[in-house]
Formats: sequence, C-alpha cells, structure tokens
Amino acid sequence: MTLPILLDCDPGNDDALGILVAAGHANIALKAVTTGAGHLAGDRTARNGAITLAAANRPDVPVAKGAMLPLVRERLIAGILDLDTALDPERPELPARELDPRHSAELIVDMVSSGAVSTVVTTGPLTNLALALRRAPDIAAKIDRVVILGGSLGLGNKTAAAEWNILCDPEAASIVFGAGAPITLIPVDGSADVGISPELIARTEAISGPIGQFAAELLRSLVTTFRPGVFSPAFMPLNDPIATLVAGDPSLARTVPARVDIELAGKHTYGRSVVDVALRNGLPANADVVLGLDATRVEQAFIDALTRLAHS
Amino acid sequence: MTLPILLDCDPGNDDALGILVAAGHANIALKAVTTGAGHLAGDRTARNGAITLAAANRPDVPVAKGAMLPLVRERLIAGILDLDTALDPERPELPARELDPRHSAELIVDMVSSGAVSTVVTTGPLTNLALALRRAPDIAAKIDRVVILGGSLGLGNKTAAAEWNILCDPEAASIVFGAGAPITLIPVDGSADVGISPELIARTEAISGPIGQFAAELLRSLVTTFRPGVFSPAFMPLNDPIATLVAGDPSLARTVPARVDIELAGKHTYGRSVVDVALRNGLPANADVVLGLDATRVEQAFIDALTRLAHS
Amino acid sequence: MTLPILLDCDPGNDDALGILVAAGHANIALKAVTTGAGHLAGDRTARNGAITLAAANRPDVPVAKGAMLPLVRERLIAGILDLDTALDPERPELPARELDPRHSAELIVDMVSSGAVSTVVTTGPLTNLALALRRAPDIAAKIDRVVILGGSLGLGNKTAAAEWNILCDPEAASIVFGAGAPITLIPVDGSADVGISPELIARTEAISGPIGQFAAELLRSLVTTFRPGVFSPAFMPLNDPIATLVAGDPSLARTVPARVDIELAGKHTYGRSVVDVALRNGLPANADVVLGLDATRVEQAFIDALTRLAHS
Amino acid sequence: MTLPILLDCDPGNDDALGILVAAGHANIALKAVTTGAGHLAGDRTARNGAITLAAANRPDVPVAKGAMLPLVRERLIAGILDLDTALDPERPELPARELDPRHSAELIVDMVSSGAVSTVVTTGPLTNLALALRRAPDIAAKIDRVVILGGSLGLGNKTAAAEWNILCDPEAASIVFGAGAPITLIPVDGSADVGISPELIARTEAISGPIGQFAAELLRSLVTTFRPGVFSPAFMPLNDPIATLVAGDPSLARTVPARVDIELAGKHTYGRSVVDVALRNGLPANADVVLGLDATRVEQAFIDALTRLAHS
Repeated sequence: MTLPILLDCDPGNDDALGILVAAGHANIALKAVTTGAGHLAGDRTARNGAITLAAANRPDVPVAKGAMLPLVRERLIAGILDLDTALDPERPELPARELDPRHSAELIVDMVSSGAVSTVVTTGPLTNLALALRRAPDIAAKIDRVVILGGSLGLGNKTAAAEWNILCDPEAASIVFGAGAPITLIPVDGSADVGISPELIARTEAISGPIGQFAAELLRSLVTTFRPGVFSPAFMPLNDPIATLVAGDPSLARTVPARVDIELAGKHTYGRSVVDVALRNGLPANADVVLGLDATRVEQAFIDALTRLAHS
Repeated sequence: MTLPILLDCDPGNDDALGILVAAGHANIALKAVTTGAGHLAGDRTARNGAITLAAANRPDVPVAKGAMLPLVRERLIAGILDLDTALDPERPELPARELDPRHSAELIVDMVSSGAVSTVVTTGPLTNLALALRRAPDIAAKIDRVVILGGSLGLGNKTAAAEWNILCDPEAASIVFGAGAPITLIPVDGSADVGISPELIARTEAISGPIGQFAAELLRSLVTTFRPGVFSPAFMPLNDPIATLVAGDPSLARTVPARVDIELAGKHTYGRSVVDVALRNGLPANADVVLGLDATRVEQAFIDALTRLAHS
Repeated sequence: MTLPILLDCDPGNDDALGILVAAGHANIALKAVTTGAGHLAGDRTARNGAITLAAANRPDVPVAKGAMLPLVRERLIAGILDLDTALDPERPELPARELDPRHSAELIVDMVSSGAVSTVVTTGPLTNLALALRRAPDIAAKIDRVVILGGSLGLGNKTAAAEWNILCDPEAASIVFGAGAPITLIPVDGSADVGISPELIARTEAISGPIGQFAAELLRSLVTTFRPGVFSPAFMPLNDPIATLVAGDPSLARTVPARVDIELAGKHTYGRSVVDVALRNGLPANADVVLGLDATRVEQAFIDALTRLAHS
Repeated sequence: MTLPILLDCDPGNDDALGILVAAGHANIALKAVTTGAGHLAGDRTARNGAITLAAANRPDVPVAKGAMLPLVRERLIAGILDLDTALDPERPELPARELDPRHSAELIVDMVSSGAVSTVVTTGPLTNLALALRRAPDIAAKIDRVVILGGSLGLGNKTAAAEWNILCDPEAASIVFGAGAPITLIPVDGSADVGISPELIARTEAISGPIGQFAAELLRSLVTTFRPGVFSPAFMPLNDPIATLVAGDPSLARTVPARVDIELAGKHTYGRSVVDVALRNGLPANADVVLGLDATRVEQAFIDALTRLAHS
C-alpha cells in the first residue's frame, strides 16, 4: 500500500529532487506539492515546483503557490546561489505546470481535511503548514505524520545556533511542533552523512532519459554551492530528498523520541531547535528525531525512485 | 459619504455595543463582522456576533467565525465574567443570524480585496487580521486605516506591562503593526476617561424600543465586572464602542504619531505595546496613538448611534 | 535624630545638587559619597563628587571612585551634555577632596557592615550597590532602606520603555530589587512635577555665599540640557536631589507598595522597570513606588537644605 | 619554567581532583585556590577546598571563600550527590586549612594585579572571576589565559541547551567572555572522551600513600553519580582535572578559534554557550574551543601529576 503524501517545499534544487523522488517512489503516492518563500521568493519557488512536476510528467499532481513572507519575522534571503544552472536562475524556456488557484495553506487544509493525504513532508520553512494549522486547527488530528527536514542538535548551519529552514520562520515552526501531530524531525546533524558524491552523480546520470539528466543537473548545481567549514562532511549533503525517502521508508533512519521546542526569544539563539532527548523539562516528547541514516540504503532508495520515475 | 467598515471582534458585551454603534452610526456603513477567540472561545464569540446582528436587524451584514487559537502562544482565558446577564452566559433563547461559511480571515481578505471595505476596526485580539495579512499580503495596501482598541502607554491591564487584547496574541499584533497599513491605536490610557456612568446607562435605557434595552443590559453587565485598582478611573471604561466611534469621527480623539512595537521576547513584558512617541529608535511612526478623548462628545456620539439604530 | 546615609551617584550636575542637599539637610547625617560610571565616565564622576564635597566644606565625608563599567551590558554614553558650565566639562581649577582609597563597592560594604549608615540613596546606575550586595550578601539585612531615583511607570526617558539610570545597568538593578532590603523607588513619572523653574533658580541664587552660587550654576546648566517632548513637564525636572529630600522626609511623597521587576530579556523593553501595583503575578511587593510629590514642600526643603549648608 | 596559576572552583569531588593535579603538576606552580557556590553551597566548597589543600600538604597555597550567590539569577541546586563518601557529605573529621580572610574575588584581583599568577583556571561557575573583573577591570590585560571547563557545542548537560557551570551563572560567564583576556574553553563535548574507567581508578589507587587513596575515593564517588543518557560516553567523564591538565600542557587538546557568546535572554536556551566556529556574525574570535583531547596522554598526565604530588 502506498502512502499518500503532500510535499511542502521551496524549490530550490534539492527540493526539486525531493519532488522527483516523491513522484517516483514505490511506497509513495504524491498527491500535491505546495510551495512558499524560502530559498527563493515565493513566485520563483512556485514556478520551480511547476517546472519540476512538468519534468516528472505528473499532470495529476496539483502545485500551489503559498506564503510570500514568514509569519512574524522579516524574510531571510539566501546568500549562496548557483546563478548559472538548474533552478536557482530563472528558466523561462522550461515547460511548467499551471498553478492550482488555491494558496498553499488552503490546499493543505483541503487535502488533509478530505483525507486525500495522510503524511505531510516539508523541506522548506514551515509557514504554509502553520497557516493551515491556525486556519483549520482540526487538521492536526488527521495528519498521521509530518516529516520535517530542518533544525539541528548541535551547531546551526545559518547562525551558530540555528538551521536555515527553521530560522526562516521560527514562529511557524513553533506552531507546527505544538500542534500535536506526530513528527519526524531530520536535523542537519542527522542527515549530513548522505552526501552528493561524484559516484552518486554518476549513478544518477546513468539513469536513461531526461529524468536522470535533470536530476544530475540539480545535483551538480548543489555541489557548486557547497562551502565546507570546520565540522562539514566530505560532500555537500543531499538534504531535501532524504525527507521524502524517510517518509517512504522509516527504517532508513535511526531515531530517538525527544521534546523539540523552538527558541523565539534568544538574542544569540533565535530560531534554534532545542532538542531535549532526555526530556529534562518534564514535557512529553513531540518528535522522533533522526540521529543517523543508513547512507548506503538511502542512496540506493534515491536511485531507485528516480529510476522508477524515469521508466514510468 | 459613509465609511465602509469591517469590524473584527470577540463579543463580549463591549464588542456587541461596538457592533450596535457601527450598525447605527450616521458616518459608517457596516459591511461585515468577523469574530475570533478572545474574551470567550471562538464558537461563543461567533454566536454572540450573530445574536447582536440579529438584534440590530441587519440581515445584510455577514458575520463570520474565525480564529479558535492565537497564532503562536497558548490561549488566554478571561478571568472575570458576568455569568448571569447579557452575552457572557450562553443565551440559546436569543435569535441569531446564520454564520457566513467563510473563516473570518477569508472574509477579511475578500472584503478588502474587492474594495467593499476601506477601514478595519478591531476590538479583540488581532489573530484574524494577521492571518488575512499573511494569507494575502497585498491587502495591506488596500486598507485606508485600521482602528485598533488595545495596548497601553503606561501600565498594562492584564499584566503589569501588557493589555489584554494585545497580550491575547502578541505575534498577531506584531504582524499588524508591521504590515504598513495606516493605524489608529486607542490604548487603555487614552480611552479610560469615557466610562459607563449611571447617567450613560440611563440615557441608553431611555432610547425607545429593544435596542435601548439590549444596549443597557450590555452596559450594566459590563459594570458588574469592574474591578477598580490603584490607577482606575471612576467608572468601568466604555472600551470597544470607542473604536467604532473614533473610526466614524476621528475628531473625537487627540492623537500623536508614534512608533509602536510589540514585545515578543521579554520575561516580564511579553505582549507589551512599546509606544515610542519620541521616535527615539530611528524607525518611522507606524500609528497615530490616541492620548485622550473628548468624553462628552464620545458619549453623545454613542447615544446618537444607538438612537439612530433604534429608529431605523 | 538624624538619618545616617550613604549617597551613591554619578555626578552629574543633579547628583552634585543631591550631595549638597544631603550635606545640608537637617534630618540627614551624610556619611559617605560613592561614585561610579554613568552620566560621565567613572574617573570624571569621582572627581565631580570630590569637587562637590570640597564646595560643601565637608572634609569628614569620604568620597570613593567605583564601577567603571556596568555589570554585564556595554556602557551607555550620555548624549546631551552642557560642555560650557558646571560639572559636565572638566574643571581642573576647582578644588577637590582626596579620594578614599577604597572602591565604592567596598566603601558601601564597610559603611553598612559597621552600622555607620542605615540608608543608601542612589541617583545613578546601581552597579556599585549591586557589586556590594554580591560581594557581601549579608549587608542587605542591615540596610533600613534604599531610596532609588530611577525607573518609570509609563514611558521611559531614554528608550520608549526604559529610564536612563536603570537602563545603564539593568542587571545591577535586578540584583538590588531582588536583595530583600526595603526600597523606595522614585520613577520619572513620580518626580516630574518638581521642576527647575526660574523662580527656584532665583531662590537658590538668593542664598548668600558660594553654596548658593554653585547650586544656581548647577541648576542653570541642567536647564540648558532640557529637551521637551510630547509628555514633558513645563520645566526640566529637578531629579536627583529629590531622592535625598525624600530620604530625609518621606512625607513629601505619595507612595504605593508594588512589585518591581527589571526586564533583562526584551527586544524593545530591555532595562524597563516593570511596576506591578496590582501585584498581579503573585509575587510580594518589593518597593514603595512614588506616584507623586508635594512640589511646594519639596522645593522648600531643597532651599532649606542649601541654606542650612550655606550657613554651616 | 612553571606556569603560575590560580584555580577557581566549587569542590566538588572533580574540582578536588583538579586541585590535587594542579598541586602536583610538573609544569604548574599552584599559587592560590578560590572557591564559590556551585556544586555545593559556598561554605561547603570553601571547606572542601581547604580539606583538599591540607591533603595535598600545601600550606603555602591560600584558599579563599567567595561568591555565595550567582550575580543575577537565583542559585541552582545540584540534584545528584553522593552523600556517603568523598566530599559531597560534610566531613568534620578531615583536617582542613585555614581560609584566607579575603573574598575569592579579592584574592583573584590581588594575585593577578601583583603578577603572582598569569593563568586562571576555572572549574565552577564564573561568579568570582566576573566579580574580580568588574571590581578591577584592568586585571583582564594582565591575565595570559583563562582556561574554563564549561559550556557545550551541542546539547547541554543540565538543560537541553545549557551546561551546568555556565548555567549556574550565565551573566558572570558573559562578563568573562567579554573581558578581553585570552580564553581556552573546554566544553562537555570536547572533554567527554576522557572517562573514569576502572583502569584509571586502579592506576590511581596504585599510587603509594594517602594521595592515591584520596584521589581514588574521589574518582569512585564521581562514578556513583554517573547517569548515562542517549548520547553519554561509556564512562563518567573526568571533567575538572582536565582543565588543569590542559593549562599545564596545551598540546593535549585540539582547538579551534571561535566566537563564544552566552545566551542571557532565551526562553529555552538561557545559559547556552553559543559557539560560532565559522565566525558567522562578524565578531572576532574570543576563545580557543577544545574539540577533542588525546585521551591516552591526558590520563597519563593525570597519573603523573598525582604521583609527583604523592612523592613530594
């Protein structure tokens, strides 16, 4: 039986890979893609989502435009882009799907309320999902699981304390973690070991047809934006597709139940995902936090999903 | 020419008076009433809004149910209610209007986008308006003015630092004050001088017909919940109807342009409306803050609007 | 019987007036003057204290140099100075007392521990007193009262939320308000009505001898730094001497018991004195907060103390 | 040439081991021990320091009592103690040194001002050092290095975000990290790999004479308080002596320059040491942060120092 999911994202090359993987995954029925501001402005992420679904040849999947701004804070602007290839630059020549007339938050409410999707996967800021949860609080009880790529256990990747997806809209993240739906959180430290190695690119490129070429272009573009630091892994992390892959096969990840709170008040820690694995503050766990992945199997699942999409 | 307004509120007896005044005011065309959680739970405020519009005999004005929860924080519960009369208790025997099928935030978006209303008056937490502004940011440019009853210059009325309406949803208030629409803020210190005196109740009761009786019941109920303190005025402040009256006739209020920021991070000051009349921090003014009212003219305008409604 | 007091200050022209008044007041035995950074750098305030005690002809009163920096925050620099007269500019030609070899915090500990002083009056940042309380916590129980000029009930005078003396060292203020000694707080809103009118200057100048001339020079200098704002009183407030006068005669002030907490965490409210007159948070009152003064009697007490000093 | 150090601590069994190691280390001249509240109340830590220096037979080293309270926050109470052995229980039967009459902060000022010590090692809350730095700011320029055991890069060990020593007095830590003296920070994640293994205890016990027995008793007591968690190392970390050992031989540690700020304002992150190894916020590095240790050499240095003390 396949898992009906909605993917909320801010494509972004790695988000686009996440869409492709979701479209091709044997265990997943991709029901909708919602987009919002994040990596790029909201108009751009919507168009990139539409381009990716056109590439995936999935006219059945609605794609919506959503939040142009974070809930409360001002919008962060991504500093490192590849302006030459893949989806960071505008690509007017690429075919794209029509956008659904609904706002992303509305589409989330509709798809969850009607039971069309049971799992929400997020690979961008959590603004759309938060808006949906405040617009229609009863959808929280209808979501089997939210799989979130974001946050960090240790150091952040945007500030010393905070990770990009959460930092883009900490108040929205706080709403989602407080909503009561079961959550799987994939923090940067839990996913860093799956990297975009030359071998992974070669395997992707070897997939016959345009899907393999498009995916490889996305991977290569991501590699050009890699800025290694003191604690960096050897390769640019694969990031967003991991959320889809873990949703499709939870056995890929090693998790621990934990309390996750989002710091909204700190001077140096605004936007930090405070992960309490020891439940020291007496509050119940509200997330299963990924501590590590089976990298070999994740990579295989990635190739499998793209291959299946290429041959569909 | 009359001013087309939408009134967002959490009735509440004083909000109900605000609705009646808006319905009867010679300068105002009341176009919609939206409600949300605040003084009472969201289902109750919606029904009270519907009861009040039925009493006002205004079947042309849609009334909507809205936010059940604040955006980010947990919901505050009002501590002092009059459980015997007026609208704090449930009143199943009173006739009520049908609710509009739309969420309050949606109705705000629709009414502002279409140009049906130019002024938004709020007498409750700002959750609905904030949701509307984040759902459709371009409506900010279409609002001529937001008139907000809330906040304080000096001491708060719920905590030492914060006033009830703002404290119920500080993050929503922060969104509204940052949205760019012109704002008139009526803080507790600017409105305290207009009180529910025995004379005002008598004048209200003297209005012939059921409107006068209903309004007088609302006023008397409010008086029973008055808890005077060190700095309290002599009478229970009239509160919410003042927002409608100032919207209808700005000359009733003495204002100063100021920067208003909402404190979201303080330990003792969460939810405080920080009013900077000297613009010390270099940010531009974002509100006209009411420092005082012409109490005699406000009372007369209150009686005039109710009388006009009674005779319509 | 006279009250043995220690005056901790940051002279500053109004602090200097406070010293003169303390030196001449019939009810007060001035036992020590301690200084610290604030209005001016720590070296300058110490020298100004020494100049003032020389002018007062009180070689029996030790004067100490103290905190060069606030406890935790960076030092604030006063923006408005009179660089031509009185004590804002350096005055190398004026005679000055030798400084006590002890740090101000040490002198406070010594004077309180030994029982030499029972009352501490502060008219500057609270750094020295906080250092003394943390260096020797048991002195708190030996202080009959701390009279503090600082804080605000309503708007601040340096930021929209905070008053200068508290804002200069909020963490120190928090220590003092938590120490357990009885406190009288004279906030800006409680003292604004006593102003430096032309008449007060004339009465001061009419005091025969150098004390009257020196005091009048200090008053005139203060007037040149007056920057009236939206809510300003008619005249430059007298400020610091009021603390000494209220210490010497508490009947000059109308007070209310209140809980005072210092906001250390806010984004817009850092350094605010949060005054809870209604004790809403369940914590006990820790200060008597001055709501107003008998301006006529305060002015008379000011003239009386200076006159007595002039004739001593 | 030996390094003249002052050790500020809150003994505490591991602090006591730190004292013994400092007393015996070939590269270190232990000049003073200062104590303050932390693991135990301030009177207890002072006595435990005096007991330890008596055991070390070092009558030349002054030991002082210091801060009874953190600077600003309320005192934390340690939750896990061994009430049966070593120094958590009161040990009236053990010989102890007389305490120096000076407060710890005073002794720090005196020893640094006079040039008697060049390095300050801290293994407790930073209250005493902060008080010294604010009492005499010019000592910062005379300290060659402060070696601090405290803080964390990843998860905290007391709250999800904060480590015990820093959390006990975050404002004091903020003062120290802002003072300008060179700092080596040994966070919990950088030191966890050196544990109290059965083998280490056996090697300690094998040192002839009372020093080996006392040190082994301290080690065994520490092991009884070990509460392993999700991310815990195999053994109870050795902790405090590591600070002395790294001061004596910096080559034991692998470090990275970083910006360290202490969060004073967060709701979930108060007391967190925010370590910015990428210097993302543009502020200069203010500490060398230990990322790892050469565990074998650290253990050998520990045994060497104790052995040298036993034979002195």
